[in-house]
Amino acid sequence: MSQAPRRVTIRDVAARAGVSIATVSRVLGGTYPPAPATRSKVMKAVRELDYVANPHARALSGATSKTIAIVLNSVISPYYAHVAQGVQAEAARHDRLCLIGITGGDAARELATVRLMREEGADAVILVGNVVDDDGYKTRMAEYASALAAAGSQLVLCGRPSLGPDVPSVNVEFDNTGGARAATSHLLSAGHQRILYLGHRVGYTTSEGRIAGYREALAAFGVEHDPGLEVQGTWERAEGYRLIKKRLQSGPPDFTAVFAANDQVAAGALKALRESGLRVPDDISMIGYDDLPPAEDIGLTTVHVPHEELGRTAARMVLERESAGAGHVMLGTHIVVRDSVRPLARPR
Amino acid sequence: MSQAPRRVTIRDVAARAGVSIATVSRVLGGTYPPAPATRSKVMKAVRELDYVANPHARALSGATSKTIAIVLNSVISPYYAHVAQGVQAEAARHDRLCLIGITGGDAARELATVRLMREEGADAVILVGNVVDDDGYKTRMAEYASALAAAGSQLVLCGRPSLGPDVPSVNVEFDNTGGARAATSHLLSAGHQRILYLGHRVGYTTSEGRIAGYREALAAFGVEHDPGLEVQGTWERAEGYRLIKKRLQSGPPDFTAVFAANDQVAAGALKALRESGLRVPDDISMIGYDDLPPAEDIGLTTVHVPHEELGRTAARMVLERESAGAGHVMLGTHIVVRDSVRPLARPR
Repeated sequence: MSQAPRRVTIRDVAARAGVSIATVSRVLGGTYPPAPATRSKVMKAVRELDYVANPHARALSGATSKTIAIVLNSVISPYYAHVAQGVQAEAARHDRLCLIGITGGDAARELATVRLMREEGADAVILVGNVVDDDGYKTRMAEYASALAAAGSQLVLCGRPSLGPDVPSVNVEFDNTGGARAATSHLLSAGHQRILYLGHRVGYTTSEGRIAGYREALAAFGVEHDPGLEVQGTWERAEGYRLIKKRLQSGPPDFTAVFAANDQVAAGALKALRESGLRVPDDISMIGYDDLPPAEDIGLTTVHVPHEELGRTAARMVLERESAGAGHVMLGTHIVVRDSVRPLARPR
Repeated sequence: MSQAPRRVTIRDVAARAGVSIATVSRVLGGTYPPAPATRSKVMKAVRELDYVANPHARALSGATSKTIAIVLNSVISPYYAHVAQGVQAEAARHDRLCLIGITGGDAARELATVRLMREEGADAVILVGNVVDDDGYKTRMAEYASALAAAGSQLVLCGRPSLGPDVPSVNVEFDNTGGARAATSHLLSAGHQRILYLGHRVGYTTSEGRIAGYREALAAFGVEHDPGLEVQGTWERAEGYRLIKKRLQSGPPDFTAVFAANDQVAAGALKALRESGLRVPDDISMIGYDDLPPAEDIGLTTVHVPHEELGRTAARMVLERESAGAGHVMLGTHIVVRDSVRPLARPR
């Protein structure tokens, strides 16, 4: 096979001139210019080698690219990461860069990030995830929406409820309640009636949507709702572990199944159950929510949320629409059956 | 308890004026002004309620924040996500925003992202992870370094080898080779000699560092190096699964232990071994690399890489240094022992 002729690089120029690459770069870039003698040596080598400055170097001083921005609390959460991945994929398809701002859950940093993205000229600013849907939140979002619209950009809410028809924003949700109803029904169909709901975050929209589905399924199956089975907690792995440990301190389990608010909570709960000598699914059945790592690795039956599709849809709604405006999409969820639920032998 | 008086919000103004929040926002923001009659109604409500425009609204038109930027291939990889988390934490401590650019592994998008971050006025642009350390790469990095330095910013390489003293960049690495030497020694000490190295990516710096440690440990223990035990492959879960499936097609395992190039590969390999009726650690011992999810959930003994500390250190070196310049830090790695390695009964 013949080889394409090797392009002359900045390294070759540096070698020929007997200087460092950084020196060549300084001469060509005109920044931090070195001594005139050095400059002459470099320019001589450039001419002799017929060096064409790298397209990269030229592009580095080119015009600003169009961007689409996404603002997250954290990138460690696989939930956020997978939504961001969807936005990135769709942005690339439309020749946009994808910028992610991280707030750490801090409102002041969220504000500063939205402002930065607006100044950046982002086509859209996508905010993702669980919120407390109170007056302060609604006001803040209305202000973002107006400020972005005024700059020719757009506010997109992803996995959050709509702000209503008056606020110029695009909205992509998934069916939290439907998924939770299906998950609970799956356990009820297997004969479980004492189902521990693990990790309810009161007031948070995603959490309220999920627990509503749990309650609806109980009602549909005619199973009495025991508020003592609804355990409040945050959505981390360590919290799932802690909640089960605490619950089992006072005696044997008063439940035959666990519906964890998300897969992380399920992973922590699984560990705590095992440490207490309880096997899943032999002794306790378990179902999670999200279908994100580590659900597959721990064989967890869970509710699949189309995270990447959420991000893709959000980006697509902004980039493929002819003019800015409102819009609302609700994506479906479904159960993924693995190996963490077992039918309960019913007492006769 | 007495309650603080509730602040008048844009909602109150909207309700008093009988218009939508968006309309109030338009009037106050001066964008998309509504009809004069509507404007009068709104301004009357503002005066009556003594409404002070939300600090958020004012801040939304404030000055640009300082940022620190990090450029990643993907946010789905927990490796990148944890480094980014470290950068974000340190940026927050120094009152900087953290912006993440995603390239999808595409050089043109990397270039455009670095350029955008430079125009953005980022204090530093941090590039993370595994690369093929060839001439093209070195040239590209030298050009980034010069362009960023010229704009008063800085190039930071995180988990990548240094560009040498001539290129103005900061460099934070971790000890890939030391970690792999320790992991392999751990298996050798348990009596394993046929250790399958799973997932070598030839030419990639991180991978070359790890396999060098594997080979060094074999040599130190006087165990002959069998190149047939070094299996090439990428670093995804599905690849670990595929490689083990393929290896076991031709007969029983010709190895007693697996050293997976990272935890994702280990998780895939574990699944494939189980499907072939081989238990870990009873039949096959296994060790991974990274100590990221799902290592804990699958009980994997692995090498801990201080990912967040890598990000924190990178950000700190830029933000706490009095003037821009070069710098190089190497962070340590260590083994985390869980439950995937068992001593091998030595034949006598």
